Amino acid sequence: MDDFRGWTLGEWRERQLDGRGLERLEALLASLEDDDTAWISRLSTDGLSARWQALEARRAAGEQLSLFGVPFAVKDNIDVAGFDTTAACPEFAYAPSEDAEVIARLQAQGAIAIGKTNLDQFATGLVGTRSPYGAVTNAFDPRYVSGGSSAGSASVVARGLVPFSLGTDTAGSGRVPAGFNNIVGLKPTRGWFSNRGLVPACRTLDCISIFALTAEDAETVAEIAGGYDPQDPYSRRHPGTAPVALPIAPRLGIPDKLEFFGDTQAEAAFAAAISRLEALGAELVEIDYAPFAKLAAELYQGPWVAERTAAVEALLETDSDAIEPTVRGIVQEGFTYSALDVFKAEYRRAELSRTIGQVLNDLDALVVPTSPTIRTIAEMAEQPVAYNAQFGTYTNFTNLADLSALALPADFRSDGLPAGITLIAPAWHDRALTHFARRWQQALAAPLGATGRPAPGVAKVEQAAGCVRVAVVG
Amino acid sequence: MDDFRGWTLGEWRERQLDGRGLERLEALLASLEDDDTAWISRLSTDGLSARWQALEARRAAGEQLSLFGVPFAVKDNIDVAGFDTTAACPEFAYAPSEDAEVIARLQAQGAIAIGKTNLDQFATGLVGTRSPYGAVTNAFDPRYVSGGSSAGSASVVARGLVPFSLGTDTAGSGRVPAGFNNIVGLKPTRGWFSNRGLVPACRTLDCISIFALTAEDAETVAEIAGGYDPQDPYSRRHPGTAPVALPIAPRLGIPDKLEFFGDTQAEAAFAAAISRLEALGAELVEIDYAPFAKLAAELYQGPWVAERTAAVEALLETDSDAIEPTVRGIVQEGFTYSALDVFKAEYRRAELSRTIGQVLNDLDALVVPTSPTIRTIAEMAEQPVAYNAQFGTYTNFTNLADLSALALPADFRSDGLPAGITLIAPAWHDRALTHFARRWQQALAAPLGATGRPAPGVAKVEQAAGCVRVAVVG
Repeated sequence: MDDFRGWTLGEWRERQLDGRGLERLEALLASLEDDDTAWISRLSTDGLSARWQALEARRAAGEQLSLFGVPFAVKDNIDVAGFDTTAACPEFAYAPSEDAEVIARLQAQGAIAIGKTNLDQFATGLVGTRSPYGAVTNAFDPRYVSGGSSAGSASVVARGLVPFSLGTDTAGSGRVPAGFNNIVGLKPTRGWFSNRGLVPACRTLDCISIFALTAEDAETVAEIAGGYDPQDPYSRRHPGTAPVALPIAPRLGIPDKLEFFGDTQAEAAFAAAISRLEALGAELVEIDYAPFAKLAAELYQGPWVAERTAAVEALLETDSDAIEPTVRGIVQEGFTYSALDVFKAEYRRAELSRTIGQVLNDLDALVVPTSPTIRTIAEMAEQPVAYNAQFGTYTNFTNLADLSALALPADFRSDGLPAGITLIAPAWHDRALTHFARRWQQALAAPLGATGRPAPGVAKVEQAAGCVRVAVVG
Repeated sequence: MDDFRGWTLGEWRERQLDGRGLERLEALLASLEDDDTAWISRLSTDGLSARWQALEARRAAGEQLSLFGVPFAVKDNIDVAGFDTTAACPEFAYAPSEDAEVIARLQAQGAIAIGKTNLDQFATGLVGTRSPYGAVTNAFDPRYVSGGSSAGSASVVARGLVPFSLGTDTAGSGRVPAGFNNIVGLKPTRGWFSNRGLVPACRTLDCISIFALTAEDAETVAEIAGGYDPQDPYSRRHPGTAPVALPIAPRLGIPDKLEFFGDTQAEAAFAAAISRLEALGAELVEIDYAPFAKLAAELYQGPWVAERTAAVEALLETDSDAIEPTVRGIVQEGFTYSALDVFKAEYRRAELSRTIGQVLNDLDALVVPTSPTIRTIAEMAEQPVAYNAQFGTYTNFTNLADLSALALPADFRSDGLPAGITLIAPAWHDRALTHFARRWQQALAAPLGATGRPAPGVAKVEQAAGCVRVAVVG
């Protein structure tokens, strides 16, 4: 059997057509280790056979399946028929009768969900340790956290088990673990991906997100998974008027006050990334970061936590001990906020978002460290809330301000751990960000995830097709 | 002096250029009666002279002023420099240092605010009686309510004192008094008009609105007053892609279950309006009104009332007796709602809005009675909350669902009171509604407001210019 570990999506798409696709997936399932805390559940051999036969039948009937036989992993707060959905809480588990809309779209193109992945329970955390299924460790050093909440989905992509996975991102859960594991984390514009079939965290803010080894792969998946869903009231129609590429010499904002919480290695890695961006032709300009920081603080220190409370209210009432202690402490805070608190916070959100929008109007994108620092699992046990909050320094404002974001591999720290960067732009600028990220990864030429495999020859980046820039969305 | 009572905007615009403009406005101010409860404050003769001189200087300098010397009235919850803003609560009053953005835009074109008008205190009501400045009476029969909360602004237009006025509309305050006084009430799409300089009721929902004798006049004012304001965080850019006209044979929805609370005259008047619409070529189709009714109930029977509480929280704490008793009872309810209540209501709002959007997608517009019934001032004193709620039956859902609405004169009741209809369509369909309304008023050929003046020859309705229909916004 060929070694498929670390294959990109492009490699999987091509090679699964060679007649050995089922055999390859059987070998993949057999290779997954029972004590791998990244997984909560995995596809059975029988389940695989049934899915494969169905795909073969569709292909024989003439269907074009652009993801034929490509394996992927799904964070276990997204419904996949045939798997329980646990949200990392066994007492909460249920057997969904149908696929989430994004899963249905990917499986309609022939992709096969091979397992459900571990997470900070109810997607509440940025660490990957808040789960009764065990802590997910960093793909580069098991003493360190994987980041979360989409911990397992990031880990299985970083280790090259699957070419892409789905996570979710409310505060930064689709970006922090990408940064900690040297992969790409695409946090799409709110409402581009349907949330039907997702266990909510903050239902007005949640985004299903994508992990992949390359920005190109993430974009391919996004174009398939995304799209308007009339049955999700928060789904939005893509306006099709946003830029699809950054200029060749983009104007990128960086925070005037960078915070690394004393982590000099993270600071040095970010400085190296900035130099690399400048070498690529970017103009870096300092921007006033205060409104971003203020808005970020609202997410967990303000009434939006009551959305998390509403999502698990029934369980809190009937069996609150079933909830992981740190998560329980957070969701119980939601009861302390009043309706007036919500509306006053909403007014602050609107005002800060307007200010942020005006800052971004003068830029092609903002670039920030994905996380200001990283911690060991032992450190997290000492300060589970405070250190978690640090990880959200550069992510928590994004959905409140209705922005698009893309976490990318960047220069490593001197201790060998990854330290990613994140590009942030207005809503619907997702395609512009992935377009630039392809240039970025080509220039970076770093190994993919934690696989040690070199990046494949990146296709030359052309002007993206299918969408013409007719207006800058402000 | 000529009798300018009941002049339309077009007449005022033309005649104020004849050299007798100041004299005419002096006569207008002199004619206003001190015991007219529609006014809270009026421009002084000195104030008028100063404004006139400034306008003359601008005109002499070559400025084109499309509303030169046209008088208008402003609901007293909108800031006009030189007038106190009271929101119908003397203890709340303050002297604004600058004009609200909409006022600035209108005055930049030469319009002159001649007074501030009475309202249900803090724009909380649909009746026009909840004010320490007195009840505003119906322009057709003083025993009946004017409707509110924009009571005075509707009254002074209906009586032909000014050709247009500004109101506000959160629940229906810009439509119900238009219906009760036989005038046009344009409730623009949320965010088209800046709310900077407005005393908030529900800040996430409030719309400044327009009263005029004709739809044509309301549209003229809206095009001047509207527009993006970067300093109002809830201001939105006009997408410019919505339809600007209804088809010649529009498909109009009517509720499958019409509620008139036993008012057979209102029922007969609405039936007459429907027949008239059919005679104009409209196709009337019954739609499921349940989601509209459910969403309407959320506004006052749900946590959005906490927005009203937040708006007057300081006064509630320091001097709650200053608040009109019925209004105080309503705003105090806001304290009883929790953050969870808000988010759960927001989820219901989103779901019902999506359903409503799908219903409207099959229609060119919805047509409803502006109010299901009308009451005397004596009746209102007996049931101040219940009868008020009845008036909002066909209005309360509109801003929660992000729709445009236009209240229009229609067939009168057999008792001689007006009974208007309201057209409702998706966000940004405002221009399509006014375009159709011009045809409607031409066919109706009713006297203007309560002036007894016949409608002037309505200009032939051409395909609206300046905006091409390129997409149906759903």
